[in-house]
Amino acid sequence: MKKVAVLGSTGSIGTQTLDVISRDPEAYEVVGLAAGSNVDRLLQQIHDFRPKRVSVGTKQLADQLQSQVPAGVRVGYGEEGLVQVAAGSGADYVVCALIGSMGLTSTLAAIEAGADIGLANKETLVSAGHIVMQRAKDKGISLLPVDSEHSAIFQCLNGEDRKSVKRLVLTASGGSFRDRSRNELRDVTVEDALKHPNWSMGAKITIDSATMVNKGLEVIEAHWLFGLPYDRIDVVIHPESIVHSMVEFADTSVMAQLGNPDMRVPIQYALTYPERRVSPASPLDLLSRGTLNFRAMDFDRYPALRLAYEAGRSGGTATTVYNAANEVAVARFLRGDIPFLAIEQIIEKVLNRHTASAFPDLGLIHETDQWARREAASL
Amino acid sequence: MKKVAVLGSTGSIGTQTLDVISRDPEAYEVVGLAAGSNVDRLLQQIHDFRPKRVSVGTKQLADQLQSQVPAGVRVGYGEEGLVQVAAGSGADYVVCALIGSMGLTSTLAAIEAGADIGLANKETLVSAGHIVMQRAKDKGISLLPVDSEHSAIFQCLNGEDRKSVKRLVLTASGGSFRDRSRNELRDVTVEDALKHPNWSMGAKITIDSATMVNKGLEVIEAHWLFGLPYDRIDVVIHPESIVHSMVEFADTSVMAQLGNPDMRVPIQYALTYPERRVSPASPLDLLSRGTLNFRAMDFDRYPALRLAYEAGRSGGTATTVYNAANEVAVARFLRGDIPFLAIEQIIEKVLNRHTASAFPDLGLIHETDQWARREAASL
Repeated sequence: MKKVAVLGSTGSIGTQTLDVISRDPEAYEVVGLAAGSNVDRLLQQIHDFRPKRVSVGTKQLADQLQSQVPAGVRVGYGEEGLVQVAAGSGADYVVCALIGSMGLTSTLAAIEAGADIGLANKETLVSAGHIVMQRAKDKGISLLPVDSEHSAIFQCLNGEDRKSVKRLVLTASGGSFRDRSRNELRDVTVEDALKHPNWSMGAKITIDSATMVNKGLEVIEAHWLFGLPYDRIDVVIHPESIVHSMVEFADTSVMAQLGNPDMRVPIQYALTYPERRVSPASPLDLLSRGTLNFRAMDFDRYPALRLAYEAGRSGGTATTVYNAANEVAVARFLRGDIPFLAIEQIIEKVLNRHTASAFPDLGLIHETDQWARREAASL
Repeated sequence: MKKVAVLGSTGSIGTQTLDVISRDPEAYEVVGLAAGSNVDRLLQQIHDFRPKRVSVGTKQLADQLQSQVPAGVRVGYGEEGLVQVAAGSGADYVVCALIGSMGLTSTLAAIEAGADIGLANKETLVSAGHIVMQRAKDKGISLLPVDSEHSAIFQCLNGEDRKSVKRLVLTASGGSFRDRSRNELRDVTVEDALKHPNWSMGAKITIDSATMVNKGLEVIEAHWLFGLPYDRIDVVIHPESIVHSMVEFADTSVMAQLGNPDMRVPIQYALTYPERRVSPASPLDLLSRGTLNFRAMDFDRYPALRLAYEAGRSGGTATTVYNAANEVAVARFLRGDIPFLAIEQIIEKVLNRHTASAFPDLGLIHETDQWARREAASL
């Protein structure tokens, strides 16, 4: 039985993780749950799964929660609360499904505590890939990708010698504005941007899909997870989101993982690996679908992806800046402060003002993150 | 260094096998070559690869060859010559690329001699799957698929627990007459039938692709190689022959192997497994291709595939009859003796006259094979 803690339990990945877990109750014990501000949903989850430790965003929310939880449930808050759920709940498996760069400290704490990690928070590797991968290696823990693309690549690498990998090919749906030109993006609304064609996801990642920043973060994440240089990580547009990603090998064979767009499949695989268990997802019906399309990524149409490659190649703190500037810009777009196209402009401007340091420590990463946020807020 | 014997060395698979071998001379020593009647090509191969033992179809051809080979090369002929190359050449790896059911005795001899097998001759498993698989298991040798579809499935199973396999999906191009109705097949010529849209192959297999008998043989072969019942082996039409086959797992994940249609890739993989080495094939360019199509198999359009499933489910000698009747019918079609559509009619009639015996021994398989050939010749 796996003792599981879920960081970000009330978000899209978190609730789907608990859905997967609830279907196989013999296999899992939920020992910790951490949420932000959705106290109602967290309370329901506490009643359903009976974790020992929980955490919310603020002291005020924690106080509110404390009076409603069963006896014996320890309630924390803020970053300390997160770390307690990650590393102090007795979890041997921690699902990191927090949004943005706040996942880093708690993920490192979970690794330090010797837990395996189901990683849905890509910003952790984007900000501090060299540190996270090294600590995971030092502790001998497994870092299992939850993102559908990285799960697909991970599955394509099953039983393969990684030295024979020639190229990773991440697929991208193109996001909610795939069929619009850049001119047509000037006046798009938040509501428009939140309509993803294939996946049902949270707001931040849906915007990131529309700007292609999400794919940029994934490219950087793939670089760290699979240890390949950026010129061997490609992105192709695949509007149907059926082929979740591919690996090309030295012998020209390409392995691909396919399925309906349902996050419960990669979430479950990260939990059950190397086993595969029956999933609640509906089986892929390639015949009723009929056609799978692929077309070249257009870096002029999606400059944010070009910026991700540039930041990745610069290395060090550049990807921290890319991510932090994007987080602030997306938040500003979502509250109506800036137009859609300003997101990528802000990322580019902040990157241009930054000189990357190679192999930054956590202190410098944090400082850089804060600096990039201030810059992105002021532009 | 692998000591390799190639049975059927002058055919399409045989020559491509030697092409693969010639590109990595440090990795292989060719110790045996067996051909049918193409003495000129065999002579060239003998000069290029210096095998110890060779074999041709008849004593007459052997005598002709004997005077032209370098000293020390032992020349045999007929079934005995084949068996000597398979089991008496010191090979630790035997590529069985013979056409039709004559591959059985020599493949069994190679297994008995403890050699691993690269199996391109699907009729071996179709005629005597239960015997071949059992002997391979008893001797602890590896039976590696060379067919592109079975190689694809084998690759999709890399690192996977076979218990989690839900379904195999073999892809079929549809053959040279894919876009014709049954009515339009009445008067097709041998020349028409030999034009396969994607693969360059020998005459027999190209006709088998047009009738879909080839896919029927592959379904039966997959049943034996991967140990799955027929209701968990499906066939879909995929005109581009880029996805070579797929495996669906319990969690709804589908793994697929893709590549350009180039037999040197699966041939090489069967030789180098579990390693992958650089291949002479050109890399897959999904972007210039753009679209992959899939549609349902039509068993009314391709009754020979329906017959293969029926024969497979009957089991025992039924698949021997299916294969033998087809071999004779194809030969008759190729020499202009019967029209194209008579191939499947002959298979059906001979199957209808046969009562299958379960778990036949080699004697009964041979008798049944001969009986089915006589019947197919007389219809």
